[in-house]
Amino acid sequence: MHELIQNGTPWILRETGNDPAVIRQNETLFALSNGHFGTRGSLEEVHRTPEYSYSRSTLINGYYDTDPISYGEWAYGYATHHQTTIPVPDGKWMELRTADEVFDLKSANVSDHERVLDLKEGILTRSFQWETREGVKLDITIERFVSYDYPEILAQRMTLVPDTSGHEVRVTFELDDLEAMGKAAGEEQAEDLDPRKKEQTRRRFTSQRLSRSPILLLHIKTQESDLHALVGSVIQTDKSKAALSSYGNQTALSFWTKAGEPVRIDRFTAYSSFFTNDQAVINQSRQLEETLERVDSEGYDKLKSAHIYRMQSFWETSDIQIEGDPALQLGIRFNLFHLNQAAGRDGKRNMSAKGLTGEGYEGHYFWDTELYMLPFFLYTQPEIARALLSYRHSILPQARERARIMGIDKGALFAWRTINGEEASPYYPAGTAQIHINADIAHAVYSYGQITGDERFMVKEGLEILVETARFWVRWGHFDDQQKGAFVLNDVTGPDEYTAIVNNNFYTNYMAKKNLLYALELIKRAENRTDSSLKQLDVSEEEQRLWERAAELMCLPYDEKHRLTMQDDSFFHKAVWDFEGTPEDKYPLLLHYHPLTIYRHQVCKQADTVLAQFLFLDDFSEEQKARDFDYYEQVTTHDSSLSRSVFGMMASRIGKDEKAYEYFMDTALMDITDLQANTKDGVHAANMGGTWLSLVQGFAGMRLHDGKLTFSPRCPKAWSSLSFSLKFRGRLIRVKLTPDTAHYERLEGEPIAIQTDDEQIVV
Amino acid sequence: MHELIQNGTPWILRETGNDPAVIRQNETLFALSNGHFGTRGSLEEVHRTPEYSYSRSTLINGYYDTDPISYGEWAYGYATHHQTTIPVPDGKWMELRTADEVFDLKSANVSDHERVLDLKEGILTRSFQWETREGVKLDITIERFVSYDYPEILAQRMTLVPDTSGHEVRVTFELDDLEAMGKAAGEEQAEDLDPRKKEQTRRRFTSQRLSRSPILLLHIKTQESDLHALVGSVIQTDKSKAALSSYGNQTALSFWTKAGEPVRIDRFTAYSSFFTNDQAVINQSRQLEETLERVDSEGYDKLKSAHIYRMQSFWETSDIQIEGDPALQLGIRFNLFHLNQAAGRDGKRNMSAKGLTGEGYEGHYFWDTELYMLPFFLYTQPEIARALLSYRHSILPQARERARIMGIDKGALFAWRTINGEEASPYYPAGTAQIHINADIAHAVYSYGQITGDERFMVKEGLEILVETARFWVRWGHFDDQQKGAFVLNDVTGPDEYTAIVNNNFYTNYMAKKNLLYALELIKRAENRTDSSLKQLDVSEEEQRLWERAAELMCLPYDEKHRLTMQDDSFFHKAVWDFEGTPEDKYPLLLHYHPLTIYRHQVCKQADTVLAQFLFLDDFSEEQKARDFDYYEQVTTHDSSLSRSVFGMMASRIGKDEKAYEYFMDTALMDITDLQANTKDGVHAANMGGTWLSLVQGFAGMRLHDGKLTFSPRCPKAWSSLSFSLKFRGRLIRVKLTPDTAHYERLEGEPIAIQTDDEQIVV
Repeated sequence: MHELIQNGTPWILRETGNDPAVIRQNETLFALSNGHFGTRGSLEEVHRTPEYSYSRSTLINGYYDTDPISYGEWAYGYATHHQTTIPVPDGKWMELRTADEVFDLKSANVSDHERVLDLKEGILTRSFQWETREGVKLDITIERFVSYDYPEILAQRMTLVPDTSGHEVRVTFELDDLEAMGKAAGEEQAEDLDPRKKEQTRRRFTSQRLSRSPILLLHIKTQESDLHALVGSVIQTDKSKAALSSYGNQTALSFWTKAGEPVRIDRFTAYSSFFTNDQAVINQSRQLEETLERVDSEGYDKLKSAHIYRMQSFWETSDIQIEGDPALQLGIRFNLFHLNQAAGRDGKRNMSAKGLTGEGYEGHYFWDTELYMLPFFLYTQPEIARALLSYRHSILPQARERARIMGIDKGALFAWRTINGEEASPYYPAGTAQIHINADIAHAVYSYGQITGDERFMVKEGLEILVETARFWVRWGHFDDQQKGAFVLNDVTGPDEYTAIVNNNFYTNYMAKKNLLYALELIKRAENRTDSSLKQLDVSEEEQRLWERAAELMCLPYDEKHRLTMQDDSFFHKAVWDFEGTPEDKYPLLLHYHPLTIYRHQVCKQADTVLAQFLFLDDFSEEQKARDFDYYEQVTTHDSSLSRSVFGMMASRIGKDEKAYEYFMDTALMDITDLQANTKDGVHAANMGGTWLSLVQGFAGMRLHDGKLTFSPRCPKAWSSLSFSLKFRGRLIRVKLTPDTAHYERLEGEPIAIQTDDEQIVV
Repeated sequence: MHELIQNGTPWILRETGNDPAVIRQNETLFALSNGHFGTRGSLEEVHRTPEYSYSRSTLINGYYDTDPISYGEWAYGYATHHQTTIPVPDGKWMELRTADEVFDLKSANVSDHERVLDLKEGILTRSFQWETREGVKLDITIERFVSYDYPEILAQRMTLVPDTSGHEVRVTFELDDLEAMGKAAGEEQAEDLDPRKKEQTRRRFTSQRLSRSPILLLHIKTQESDLHALVGSVIQTDKSKAALSSYGNQTALSFWTKAGEPVRIDRFTAYSSFFTNDQAVINQSRQLEETLERVDSEGYDKLKSAHIYRMQSFWETSDIQIEGDPALQLGIRFNLFHLNQAAGRDGKRNMSAKGLTGEGYEGHYFWDTELYMLPFFLYTQPEIARALLSYRHSILPQARERARIMGIDKGALFAWRTINGEEASPYYPAGTAQIHINADIAHAVYSYGQITGDERFMVKEGLEILVETARFWVRWGHFDDQQKGAFVLNDVTGPDEYTAIVNNNFYTNYMAKKNLLYALELIKRAENRTDSSLKQLDVSEEEQRLWERAAELMCLPYDEKHRLTMQDDSFFHKAVWDFEGTPEDKYPLLLHYHPLTIYRHQVCKQADTVLAQFLFLDDFSEEQKARDFDYYEQVTTHDSSLSRSVFGMMASRIGKDEKAYEYFMDTALMDITDLQANTKDGVHAANMGGTWLSLVQGFAGMRLHDGKLTFSPRCPKAWSSLSFSLKFRGRLIRVKLTPDTAHYERLEGEPIAIQTDDEQIVV
């Protein structure tokens, strides 16, 4: 059991001591964010002790810089620019000193050092005792939280209680924008292979001080992408006890100790980002100053109470309770906590694969959002799900442009990885070729409509996405005379990135078929509504007939002899990977074998066919799903963190309860235990989403079937109960399962029928 | 008709006037080389007039520097370094001046400017009259040639004849290593897309002067690859007429004009390159100085006579005569001239795709050598063919290492593009995936044995190559139960680079089959020879049975319904490219469409299936070849310069005489007419080889069949005759064809039986 969760309190992650390796490691886990910005759990004085940190960065969601992608050999249509989320000035920076000693955790005489992340309240608290060289003992506590009420605000409170009077103590605060802001993710590897990547570790913006006192306000601008941000900060303390002074980007506070008398310092740092013209800078500065003035006048205590209240509301609908395994309970909450922290809420930003907890994957948005993370929001905070889908709608122009570049004259192709909507994947075989992202987004949009009943969104933004993606499919593919006129999609890559550039990936084709049918259905639903975007989309009858025909004749490769679904046309023609001859240290394969070695064998990085079948459980017979599961499980390495949760859920659905439990337990604590050995670069948000999916759609067997909420629970025997809540079409429904019983209760909204294995009931 | 060849003398390329665009363009065409080094046809004073030049570089074959390849996204086994041939100090640099004027073609008062490349003698002569500001008229002639007798030597002679006495003229010579040596190929495009490539245009070596007088000797060393070169130069003139002085890297000569009295200045520049230790530098310097002393003492006239004699011998066996089209005759000779200039002759260097005429393709060696350029040498200068194949043998260690990286535990995989034997292709789908290069080399080796009877080479170096490549195939491929146990080769790219990463490319599989059979045959032949490498290769019986089985069961995809050979398993499943909807300016497609757009359609860049059938003409029925030709011709853009010659030859073989003639005429003058618009980067050596192939293997229908020289002539009606010579197993055979007759004559060696369409005859 990991030491962080040994305490048995299923809301608290507690770290004790001052081992740099532990503190460094927990920097990701202790990151705080609110979807708008986030800041890693680094120590306040870590600029003095770099060995205690991987990266102390603060990241604003969607705040990135670009630089040209350098290709050894260029080809037309390649992604042109990296988009790299860049750290902004760090508002956590503090320096504590006496007349002859500057505090840091490495050299100071410190005892009882402890950090506690309270998941329930969303507050990180650090406490310790510092005995200065002069012999003063200072009890110090530093709290921080990132506000949901004021999305721009990081609030911090430092409390110092001295045991001796008459010594001077000085605390300095700075917005630290003057040096490298930490290491880019994966730097160790990148240093060997790609000298250009080092560039990204350097400061990537220019900054300018707009005002100083009482509010320090910096205006920063990225070098290439012309994105602006403002960072403001204000310090509050009892002026009768301490003197404040400012110089440059620093504010210093000094006081003389009085034995037993606490000194409190509150600090609010605010972050905003925007595209701009000069007027915008002025407006935005004014706005940010107003926000800071407001939180300053409300005060830390009030802000904290409001924050705790917000966190409580979150847990009321979003918590999942497991009785019988307190450590797992804590791990699950940790995952839900970080999921909630990661999602952009303003319709202009999405969720990075690492949330805002690290710079891994450059802060990009992938299909991970729609397939792995979004379902949690769909069923607990649908307004956030809507915001995330609105982001996709907002980048439709870029997706249309991308389709043109790819030779498609009508419709849209979403970028495989992006922040600003443009393709940023420098390796198309496992990037642009994953055109399934179009259908993944379409599926998420359709599900949103089903779950929320938000018909207004569906017939406008939703319809636009569904129509434009449907248009793409019939142009990428064609009816293949050689296959009895089947509609084929060639030269694509499915979810499994160990098999690239193939024809008729089953997952892609199945999802494309659904996408076409969704679009047709939505058009019908939109026809009689005045608020729909149908007219401007100008969908012809002929177009719809083509979609119908393509959906109907969609090629779904199947091996009749072995009665197995084929991952793609040629998957079974490849030699099975020599798993026995592959030592443990050669995993993940992608770091030890050339793509052509991997691609020409039957070996999967992750769930592919099984994922398609899980998404549409009721479309496939139990026997088929079981056969396919058994086959693909043998050839899957799970080298991707997106894999195990899907295999686990399917295992649960086909009655392999033990396997389901094992898969779940393998990954539920992935980041806390650093299973993938790269948590330092940020949490695995998709796997966290997978935890929620595993519990709700896996063990509880919740799914939509014919538009109806349906359950087939298989609560693991290891737990005495599993409980959670769901929002569905305006209702709040509470589910409590035990290995033998199931209880469904409606907490809000009108009565509604739900389906269980045995019967339909109204709750 | 191009102006260079309007003169009607079928040995002379003549350029008149001083249009910078023309002079710049002819810089590639007027390049002189001898396989060891080459120098572009730039003006001596072009450092003063950059608009008269693309690049004045001098290149030593195989002298390159490396720099890391930067990938947007790295993967295991990717090529790590660019290998870039780099220009060395330019020995053509001359500066001519009077007291108050420095000569250059742009500003000087020049008349009758002319440059003549005499293909017969291999000499480039520039002549003009310069009227100085002082009113002196100087008739100036500058000759240059690159010696075949002394592979290190560039010889130049400047002759000045003044019409007035009493004026001072000064000529300065320099080894120009002090500034950028011109532009890297494709720079205009690269500048937009890849800032790193600019790097390559900068000086990439350090230089040090070893001695100065009378011989100036520079030692240069590349920055990264640690390759050393020496460049030496010596000036000779009649010291009674002129004074010589040296300073730095310059030697200056001044004289006072005497009306009507010529002044001659001879200059020899020598180039050598080597890997080294300090002793090697000393030894090599001594050697190069000795060479320079020797040519200096022999004198220019003697060296020139020997050179002309060598050129005559070359033409005696290598010339192809066409009666009835003098311009074409000249164009063909131009191609043969450059082919001969391009080939490395020391077994350590090969032939770059651009010869030594430009920096295009970074000076890399491709399959072009074996498939397109080598046959000319095989049948006219087999000792050069042997040297080229010895180079491949010399890089077997790197090819073995490459196979290991590609997950193949035994055997070798030759690099797709390379100088030093290591893979330098930064784009594996059209690089490393073209594993057919292994079979291409094996086929060339086997052909060498057939044509020369050099059994000693075959059972040693040849056998090693054949065995190591055979070993590769049975490990890349496997017997596919899903295809009745056929031996399949998956995830490869064939010659056609518009179709990548496919299963069972027909060309690759057919060539691999031959490779396996060649290896088996050679093992038999080597068994009783003491000089063979059979023992050390340690080929087991079991291994040979596996090769036999793989060859026998090799998958050769065929569409029974349409009775067409399938380019690969899925080629016919793709939609045919919309040729009608593709405007002219969208060709070549690779510059206007994303790889996935191209790959997912039926469209070929170049001959693929047709090439396999041409290489083994007698293995396929006339009808089959005709059907496949018709089909693939429709979907081939010939965007590669390797394509038209193959289609032309096949057309000739299947009786499409008009088409054959058209294809031939389209490309025979490719570089002279700058058909591909990139001759500035260097000549298209493979296309030049294609010219020879088209005449000899196309129109004359020469091929090996059951080890016998075989002819099926179809001399175009446009020509009154077509004549050439061939070396075959120690004989020299002269062939003269007219549209209606064929005459075969043995000029050297023992009588031998040859096969014609009608009969077997002994010549």
